This record gives sequence, C-alpha cells and structure tokens, in this order.
Amino acid sequence: MADAPRPAADDVHPFDLATGLQAAGPHHWRGQPGALYWNMVGPFGGATAATLLRAVLLHPERLGEPAALTINYAAPMADAPFLLEARPVRTNRSSQHWVIALTQPDAAGVVVTVATATALTAVRRETWSATELPMPQVMPADALPRTPPIAGFAWSERYDIRLLDGPLPETWDGAEHADSTSRLWMRDLPPRPLDFLSLAAMSDMFYPRVWRRRAHRTPAGTVSMTVYFHADQAALEASGTSALLGEARGQEFRHGFFDQRAQLWNADGLVLATTHQIVYFRD
Amino acid sequence: MADAPRPAADDVHPFDLATGLQAAGPHHWRGQPGALYWNMVGPFGGATAATLLRAVLLHPERLGEPAALTINYAAPMADAPFLLEARPVRTNRSSQHWVIALTQPDAAGVVVTVATATALTAVRRETWSATELPMPQVMPADALPRTPPIAGFAWSERYDIRLLDGPLPETWDGAEHADSTSRLWMRDLPPRPLDFLSLAAMSDMFYPRVWRRRAHRTPAGTVSMTVYFHADQAALEASGTSALLGEARGQEFRHGFFDQRAQLWNADGLVLATTHQIVYFRD
Repeated sequence: MADAPRPAADDVHPFDLATGLQAAGPHHWRGQPGALYWNMVGPFGGATAATLLRAVLLHPERLGEPAALTINYAAPMADAPFLLEARPVRTNRSSQHWVIALTQPDAAGVVVTVATATALTAVRRETWSATELPMPQVMPADALPRTPPIAGFAWSERYDIRLLDGPLPETWDGAEHADSTSRLWMRDLPPRPLDFLSLAAMSDMFYPRVWRRRAHRTPAGTVSMTVYFHADQAALEASGTSALLGEARGQEFRHGFFDQRAQLWNADGLVLATTHQIVYFRD
Repeated sequence: MADAPRPAADDVHPFDLATGLQAAGPHHWRGQPGALYWNMVGPFGGATAATLLRAVLLHPERLGEPAALTINYAAPMADAPFLLEARPVRTNRSSQHWVIALTQPDAAGVVVTVATATALTAVRRETWSATELPMPQVMPADALPRTPPIAGFAWSERYDIRLLDGPLPETWDGAEHADSTSRLWMRDLPPRPLDFLSLAAMSDMFYPRVWRRRAHRTPAGTVSMTVYFHADQAALEASGTSALLGEARGQEFRHGFFDQRAQLWNADGLVLATTHQIVYFRD
C-alpha cells in the first residue's frame, strides 16, 4: 500500500520535494525540510505534518487511509537532516494506530525530539453519512483575485490563496475584533492533485487567530494540531486540483495559549477535513 | 510538582481508585481499572484519559500544568493489570512534550498497546484573554432534576448529570434529527473538587452524536480524543465541586467515522476545556 513511484526529479512538485523521505530501515526515514516551505523559524507547520504523515503512507504495513492525525511541534525544525520514526503500534481488523517521532541533532550535536505525532488509519466503508457543517455560501474562487503572498515567507508563495473574510490586520493598531473568523479558498501552486498529504498541510493554513482578534503583533505559533480526515481516496480524486474552502475561528484565549478550529470543504461542498489546534502566544 | 499526598484509603474517591497508579520505576506506573467506572467493553474512556494524564502529573520531571492531551483508544482495556509509560521527550523553557503508552497482556499473554497519548504541559502566565465561546443561557443545575444513570453502565452512576437538551433517544425508531447538540450539567458523584484529571474525564461525557442524529442503535466508540485545557490550577480551585456545563455537537459523519466537538464551562461561565473526538460507528 505504498505510494506510487515518485516521478522524475524535474517533475517533482515543490511540496513533494519539501516533504520527501528516504527509507532508512524498518520504521525509519530520513529527510531534510529545505527552504521551499520555510516559515519564520522553521518550515511551515503544515508541511511538517505532511512529512510525518508521508511516513505512514509509505510504510509497508499500513492498513487503510488516514482518519486522524495529531502532531505536536516540540521545537523549531532546522533546515538540516532529520530522522523520522513511524511505527504501527496496534493493528485491528480495520484500523491501525501509529506513533511517530521526528528527531534532529541540536546545535551541540545532541539528538533531540522536534515533533511527535499519533495517527489513525482505517479502512473506510460506505455508511450513513451527514454533515452539521454546511459549506458557507461564498463567492467562488475564480471570481476572486489571488491574495498576495506574505513577503518573506517562502511557504506562502506555494499556495494560491483567495481570501474571502478575515484578513491579517493591515495595521497593527490594537483594534479588537469580537470574532476571529477567516474564510479563504486555497490550493497548491503550481496546482497539484489533492491527496492526504496536501490536505494535512492545508489544515494548518490559518494564521493565529489572536492576530485577528487583537491587531497586536504578539509572537504566536502552533504547538499541537489535530486533523480528522473525512475524505476517502475517491473524494480526494474528485477534488483534483480545485481550490478548497477553509473557515477558521478562535475559541478560547487565556494564559498564553488559545485554540482554533477549522473546516475544509471541496468546491462541491463536501467536508474533507476538520481540524483543531492549540497555539502559543506571548502576551 | 507531584500531586498532593493521597488520602487514607477509606477516604479515597471512587474516581481516584479507578484512575490510581503505583510507581514502577523511572517513567513507568502500574494500575488496574477496576469495575467502578466500567462502560460496555472496557472502562469509561474519560477515566482512561485521566489515568494516562495522572502519570504526567505524578512524574517528578513535570514542568507546568496540562495544556493539551490527545488519547488514542487502540483496543478495549481489560480489567487486568496494565503498565503505563509517560516520558517527557522535550522540555522547553516553559513547556514540555510527553509521549504516553498503556500496555496490557492480551488473552494469549502477549503484551499489546491498549492506548497511546501525547500531552503538552506548560507554565501558564497571565496574558490577554478572551472567548468566542460564551456560555449558553441555560437553567442552573440546581433547578433541574438529576438525569437517571444509564442502567448497566457503572460509570454513569458516578456522575450527577442534569440534562438540558439532546437526550439519548427514548425510542430507537430511526427518526433523524438535523442537529445533534446536547447540553448538560455534570459533576462527580460523590462530589469531588475539580482537577485536571476529572476535567479530562468529563471531556468524554457526551454520548456518540450519531445516536442523537439517527435514533439508530449502531455500535459506536471513541477512537481518539483531544482536550485543550484552558483552566489553570486557580480556575479549577475556584470551580470546586460545582457542576460544569457541557455542550457537544457532531460535525461530519461519513465512512464509518464522525467527529464531535464540545466545550466545558464552570458555573461562572469560564471555559475550562474544549475538546474534540473522532468516533467509530458501524453503519
């Protein structure tokens, strides 16, 4: 159940270069994030999530498709080689539990944990289905201009974002907003057919809600993110390279942390993923 | 930063008996769930979450208070001895990342993984605070009768539940509801001062939303739950033995899984925890 063979290097999408892995023995892979999806003090967290999930998808013992992923960002990742361990710790009849860790040598050469994760894969079946998250009525992506990428953030050059509501503050004037909701269309740039990896990455597309609430430039960063995958492979293939609609909103802000939830729909209105994250903020 | 000394055995609350641990060397504890919080094929998942978190709280190297917990229910837990490993894998200046696993011998004596978890602890500080989850206006707990426990489920005898909205279906007649919201007041029975352990347990208080949606008795069980703790120790102490208000709602139901989100407020309207879980259902 490993991924399809990788295409020739000159055809490889930047996302696959940035999240690529080389086998390094049972349950182990090596890689290096590179600069393509660089954020401020490490790679875009969504790319890191995809990197960890890729090991699960590549694992020869994998059963089923991703259903849940929780990634904990323990320390900034350096643009240096890492070692990734992904191990199935429990295989049931139709589901499987994974424990994942990414380590790197620190500046002193000591190997430290940079990220941990757990994942659930499962054989998806047809069942009763329903949603309590109807897609908001919004302008289609094609009717909107591309929102300019954020200067100096390489990863934001790799996405075509069409913002509907809830922009980054234009001025950091401390004007408080009661509601932190943002809505946006997003897709890979250049276009890339949607898969579980890019869906995991796009789950981390929403800037820290505290910035929207406060228009105050406090340092902030995701500490833990959970993604529930509601799409199966067929739904991903049907989504193709179309933009996904995402909506994110903050929940509770206190004592240096807040959480935010988000949903991702495809253009047909199907919920592909729901996601939650807890974010550190300084003040 | 270990817990306060345990009281004499005859004063021990059933919750502490059911989630108690004995030290078993560095990073390791032993325990046994017992029948006090038994559910259908294992202990109440909330009690299991508390058991895993207890190891973190007891750990001599712990830094700060719980901020996030993700627990994965990999297999039914037997009422038999278990071994629990809780290891701090990364300690930063004011936060710490934990990896946790619970194992038991299976029927053939082979040691298997029953649950995995990751946790974040952090030194909480005063910062700007706000909520986007105002407490719903509801009847106070004291104005409502206790909702009868569910016959045959020991754990439900251990909670004083006052249901406001969204009961279990009285008849399993297949009548669909468009909205799966439930609201209820809850507290330990007998009363027990709120702590991070009981807050973790009460985060799993909401029956599977698919039952509410469908009034169809499909087998269902939580596979993974994430809790974000917004309360610090002072907020827990201020909550004391008062009932907490919980609200839960389903999100997306498809391919044998659905997810639900929930919030827990204390009687003063403070959000103590937000939580999300993904639940298996059969058909």
